[in-house]
Amino acid sequence: MDAAPLLSAIRFDASGLVAAIAQQHDTGEVLMLAWMNADAARETLATGRVCYFSRSRNALWRKGETSGQVQRLVEMRLDCDGDALLLLVEQQGVACHTGRRSCFYRAARDGMDWTVIAQPLVSEHDLYGPR
Amino acid sequence: MDAAPLLSAIRFDASGLVAAIAQQHDTGEVLMLAWMNADAARETLATGRVCYFSRSRNALWRKGETSGQVQRLVEMRLDCDGDALLLLVEQQGVACHTGRRSCFYRAARDGMDWTVIAQPLVSEHDLYGPR
Repeated sequence: MDAAPLLSAIRFDASGLVAAIAQQHDTGEVLMLAWMNADAARETLATGRVCYFSRSRNALWRKGETSGQVQRLVEMRLDCDGDALLLLVEQQGVACHTGRRSCFYRAARDGMDWTVIAQPLVSEHDLYGPR
Repeated sequence: MDAAPLLSAIRFDASGLVAAIAQQHDTGEVLMLAWMNADAARETLATGRVCYFSRSRNALWRKGETSGQVQRLVEMRLDCDGDALLLLVEQQGVACHTGRRSCFYRAARDGMDWTVIAQPLVSEHDLYGPR
């Protein structure tokens, strides 16, 4: 697949990155926000398996390569000004490294501090093994 | 409301900004991705009306102040590492400056180029007047 026309419309920032929102395709749940560089976007489109760029590790991050919690791409979408991606995905297991389904598990509900609104479905030990 | 404990958990980047995803609270539709600085987040929490920070105008951007397409905050959520917000909102009218409901109206469907999958519901002229 020649992804060049797709990639050329993406406005990567000065660091070569674009924000990518992962949303479970059928339930609409927003799972996480991460970043892609051009190589990550190209690989994701080519393989149908979501690959991000890890800013902390400065390397491609094939989601689930350690934890097994893979994201299959259902559809990639681009926003009006080309600087954000929306990934409709089929999330295997959990998206969050804490073992929660979604990374957005803290809510401003009482107006004073963050309330934890979701519990881990799997332990970090089970996701990543002993550290 | 003292939002200091809420704000202190947000990890603003080197430019003082955090990514904020707006999602229609009942349908789950992802509407847009924008940015907030601390003042924008504080104002949004205090007023219940979403305020972003416009990177192009370098100023607070009270969503809908020109177009009337206001976002009422239903709930603010924070992700695991504190560097992304999810805003559950009640979107009045359309979120996108093109007059479309969502900014994510282009999809990689044929593998070759972006396909426009949504049409404007209102004209830019009606949103912003003659330019």
